[in-house]
Amino acid sequence: MLPVFLFLLLILLSAADASVQDFCVGDISASDTPAGYPCKDVSHVTTNDFVFKGLGKAGNTSNIIKAAVTPAFVGQFPGVNGLGISAARLDLAPGGVVPLHTHPGGSELLVVTQGMILAGFISSANGVYYTTLHKGDTMVFPQGLLHFQVNAGGVTAVAIVTFSSPNPGLQITAFALFANSLPSALVEKVTFLDDAQVKKLKKVLGGSG
Amino acid sequence: MLPVFLFLLLILLSAADASVQDFCVGDISASDTPAGYPCKDVSHVTTNDFVFKGLGKAGNTSNIIKAAVTPAFVGQFPGVNGLGISAARLDLAPGGVVPLHTHPGGSELLVVTQGMILAGFISSANGVYYTTLHKGDTMVFPQGLLHFQVNAGGVTAVAIVTFSSPNPGLQITAFALFANSLPSALVEKVTFLDDAQVKKLKKVLGGSG
Amino acid sequence: MLPVFLFLLLILLSAADASVQDFCVGDISASDTPAGYPCKDVSHVTTNDFVFKGLGKAGNTSNIIKAAVTPAFVGQFPGVNGLGISAARLDLAPGGVVPLHTHPGGSELLVVTQGMILAGFISSANGVYYTTLHKGDTMVFPQGLLHFQVNAGGVTAVAIVTFSSPNPGLQITAFALFANSLPSALVEKVTFLDDAQVKKLKKVLGGSG
Amino acid sequence: MLPVFLFLLLILLSAADASVQDFCVGDISASDTPAGYPCKDVSHVTTNDFVFKGLGKAGNTSNIIKAAVTPAFVGQFPGVNGLGISAARLDLAPGGVVPLHTHPGGSELLVVTQGMILAGFISSANGVYYTTLHKGDTMVFPQGLLHFQVNAGGVTAVAIVTFSSPNPGLQITAFALFANSLPSALVEKVTFLDDAQVKKLKKVLGGSG
Amino acid sequence: MLPVFLFLLLILLSAADASVQDFCVGDISASDTPAGYPCKDVSHVTTNDFVFKGLGKAGNTSNIIKAAVTPAFVGQFPGVNGLGISAARLDLAPGGVVPLHTHPGGSELLVVTQGMILAGFISSANGVYYTTLHKGDTMVFPQGLLHFQVNAGGVTAVAIVTFSSPNPGLQITAFALFANSLPSALVEKVTFLDDAQVKKLKKVLGGSG
Amino acid sequence: MLPVFLFLLLILLSAADASVQDFCVGDISASDTPAGYPCKDVSHVTTNDFVFKGLGKAGNTSNIIKAAVTPAFVGQFPGVNGLGISAARLDLAPGGVVPLHTHPGGSELLVVTQGMILAGFISSANGVYYTTLHKGDTMVFPQGLLHFQVNAGGVTAVAIVTFSSPNPGLQITAFALFANSLPSALVEKVTFLDDAQVKKLKKVLGGSG
Repeated sequence: MLPVFLFLLLILLSAADASVQDFCVGDISASDTPAGYPCKDVSHVTTNDFVFKGLGKAGNTSNIIKAAVTPAFVGQFPGVNGLGISAARLDLAPGGVVPLHTHPGGSELLVVTQGMILAGFISSANGVYYTTLHKGDTMVFPQGLLHFQVNAGGVTAVAIVTFSSPNPGLQITAFALFANSLPSALVEKVTFLDDAQVKKLKKVLGGSG
Repeated sequence: MLPVFLFLLLILLSAADASVQDFCVGDISASDTPAGYPCKDVSHVTTNDFVFKGLGKAGNTSNIIKAAVTPAFVGQFPGVNGLGISAARLDLAPGGVVPLHTHPGGSELLVVTQGMILAGFISSANGVYYTTLHKGDTMVFPQGLLHFQVNAGGVTAVAIVTFSSPNPGLQITAFALFANSLPSALVEKVTFLDDAQVKKLKKVLGGSG
Repeated sequence: MLPVFLFLLLILLSAADASVQDFCVGDISASDTPAGYPCKDVSHVTTNDFVFKGLGKAGNTSNIIKAAVTPAFVGQFPGVNGLGISAARLDLAPGGVVPLHTHPGGSELLVVTQGMILAGFISSANGVYYTTLHKGDTMVFPQGLLHFQVNAGGVTAVAIVTFSSPNPGLQITAFALFANSLPSALVEKVTFLDDAQVKKLKKVLGGSG
Repeated sequence: MLPVFLFLLLILLSAADASVQDFCVGDISASDTPAGYPCKDVSHVTTNDFVFKGLGKAGNTSNIIKAAVTPAFVGQFPGVNGLGISAARLDLAPGGVVPLHTHPGGSELLVVTQGMILAGFISSANGVYYTTLHKGDTMVFPQGLLHFQVNAGGVTAVAIVTFSSPNPGLQITAFALFANSLPSALVEKVTFLDDAQVKKLKKVLGGSG
Repeated sequence: MLPVFLFLLLILLSAADASVQDFCVGDISASDTPAGYPCKDVSHVTTNDFVFKGLGKAGNTSNIIKAAVTPAFVGQFPGVNGLGISAARLDLAPGGVVPLHTHPGGSELLVVTQGMILAGFISSANGVYYTTLHKGDTMVFPQGLLHFQVNAGGVTAVAIVTFSSPNPGLQITAFALFANSLPSALVEKVTFLDDAQVKKLKKVLGGSG
Repeated sequence: MLPVFLFLLLILLSAADASVQDFCVGDISASDTPAGYPCKDVSHVTTNDFVFKGLGKAGNTSNIIKAAVTPAFVGQFPGVNGLGISAARLDLAPGGVVPLHTHPGGSELLVVTQGMILAGFISSANGVYYTTLHKGDTMVFPQGLLHFQVNAGGVTAVAIVTFSSPNPGLQITAFALFANSLPSALVEKVTFLDDAQVKKLKKVLGGSG
């Protein structure tokens, strides 16, 4: 019986050759495209391409904001290329803050796995939506809107965050304003902030101009 | 100075009226559309619409497969409507199994938050990709492919799973085959399974025909 | 010859009945969906639905920022519903500024039609891209990134801006921070701004908390 | 054993309630949206919603162009709503012609099931791609480009055509020019056609103006 | 008059240079991307790239399932690259069966061109939708759901099937379970099948483990 | 304080490395893909990549149609690659005409910046929508439908047009019919035009056959 069935396999699986695209593990050494990276050759793909081990380890929160973000975006986890999803781990030591930021390329879904987090976002219509999340609580932050997370308890908080894109981006407002070469006068004009405030934060965050 | 600025607000925020769509919390009492549910009136939207509290509680695994899936899809969590993402909690008691299944509408990203899970998927080209995941490990399952999760340790395992769709669907192969009215003869013809096997599982899983 | 041809028309145009969707003028009195508004009945659609007359008139720049944005988004121009495009007019009196902002839902393309504009954006990787645009110059601002426009000449500048979405949204950073009820302490924590600065701008921009 | 398994079903299938969207059979009595029609209630959906019986019958080619197009677009076949595909049957009696046309909303794939068809399309760059197709031959016509089909044998030709959209539209150039109220002078100006030619065809095809 | 018009052509067709993308015939020797293959140089594209001749020939059904699937996916028919559509021919000898399967990447539309076919699918909510299709009948199978086709008459049946993707994939459940190296114990755990059944089919279908 | 903050930057900006895709300036020397060109290396991207200076200069209307279209599509303006938008400038001298055409790949939004333009489109259902636009008036032309623009005043008219695609294409009906090698007999058959008319325009527009 075997030979006939194997013959059948050849017939039916002719569709299942190398050109079938069930997945497209990113070849991040190649040039990106608007839809993601070119695919790694399927014959070189292994289970490891679909597994990321970095989210199990606490990020280093020994810094001013007492926070760490460990991304598993396509750059770190090529298996998500083209699949419309990615992840990150968030560690917030007591007093820790993830400053106001946006993800230009995707919505975010946060699940608290330890501690308590005060999280929120602001809408285009200037609506304010924030609350304190406990372990197991989930919050969704719509694409492109300003949002933040702050430790709301006395112990380190941890969250798993996922995104509706393999490459959601991360634009932290304070860094965009104060950690680059955008001239202070221009920053002041487009934010209404005082010159002293801008210059103080430019100094702290390493900006010039 | 205030009055002039408020006047400015009126000018600039004319774009930010009720017709702006930053998000579209689903009105799940209305008819769905191919792109998701109609939006709840923004004036009735509150922070609670973006928060889901059900993933913090262990599912009931006192059943044959010793497993529970607690979904936070758009039907349970209308805030994800239109945002391209959703979540679920997976509980696997010792010996627990999430049977072979697909999500027709989205890719899945799983993060183990407790215990160990043997997880894997099978590609169209009949490639087999599976491994044992430990706490903090992440695995991605490409859209529409058969995959499974099995407790791989002596203690209850828990995972947070997220999807690249607010409504990914869940088709468990054994239920599709044995838990409905599809006639046994037809099931046998399209699966190569023996009549006795099909009838046995139809009886166990509550199917007829 | 006519009768036969008319018969032909009936045959061939059976595809072209009311269910064909060449366009979907938005019925903005109905609930929005993630893909846009339900369509106005084709039998009530007229040429006027595809024409917007508001961009020909200068916006009122008699305000502190000496600027005006006149939107032709789906809320004002229902003909663009579902078509992936919309527009606005930008007026910048001498000294005028469109403060730092994002459009969560689309990329922007600006064409200067009068005067000179200093325009720029900041990338996720904190790259700074800005330049002075003259009449006829065009600049594109990628989706979701912070950007700004400032009058760069002695005369009123005007620009036509268009978006890759009928409903791109508009989130002005200073308004998101200072013109709503987000508590000052929280604003300070997530932006690194000083308390005095936050309270000063909250007062100016009409925020509370 | 049954009761426990049924209990399991309740747990696992909690995701599979009425809010799950495997399909969205169109309720074509409701208003369309940019993504398709609202979904018919799943409890009223039957197998018949996914079956269309009209493509088995020859269209009536007793007309001047000796051709008939029988559509199975979403308006005739609501089961394809939201599924990104639709179909039609094409009958071409000897001498029959499907005049030059476009489908604004989708690409077309044609399979000849009887006879011979001369088919082709013209690209934006004015490239001309045409050939004679025999029974079983397949040709693809990229979205939005002008194309045509002409009977190329002595017997009636039949083709199954499918589209990458449930609602591809059909714009026949000659009807757009000559079968409506667009004034003759305007038609002439935008096509370079002679006045006599335009008026002759307006008369034949039932246009006015 | 010619020279002036040709000059006009140069002006107006400056948009229609090599960078215009009306179509993107796949260069399947290059690496795939999540959106499809890179485009073959337009100067090398001919009519043949848009024509596939393989669907006119009966597939070889001299095998156990008495069936053959002849695909015209992007791997066989590079002209469909990027166009959101592809096709296949299905031959079912008397007694022939296309076993239970899914297409992870697209919906399927089947048109019977000869004989009778019993076809159906199962939904996520475990709904069963099946019927007998006659010549000319059309059935649509929503993306990612399990479905099957069985010859329902005494003569060979033939169908043209098309897909809403140039690369829909094909995952046959029995092959995914029994024709690869997935260990028998694991297959049994995730399907509830008996050990003897799994080992018997692994032997028949060429699986190991 | 600086060193600690800089350390923080390293932590938080680990997501913002070269693999983040805020934009994807097209490398138009590489092969296109269905989603656009591969991205130019971010380290080589400058502000100039996002600026196009060609729309400030009047096109040359010294031709028979007294019109000029100056495109800023991805081929001329690589910064729009992947951003879902592009632009063009339209000059219409008195008596000028942009002949009937379609954009297969996108909707168009036109803003008159000088003079008066008679513009319109025809729907699949053969509806006719046209009107005279004055300075500042905006009209939207749905994707893939035939449309035209004609100078409606005694002075040169200018418009800025934008598209919902970086690569919308441009198919001018008269050129598709008369400016290539499509045989006259075939043109006549698929358009109902007279032989003399076709041959006259083939001669004028440089077609053969």
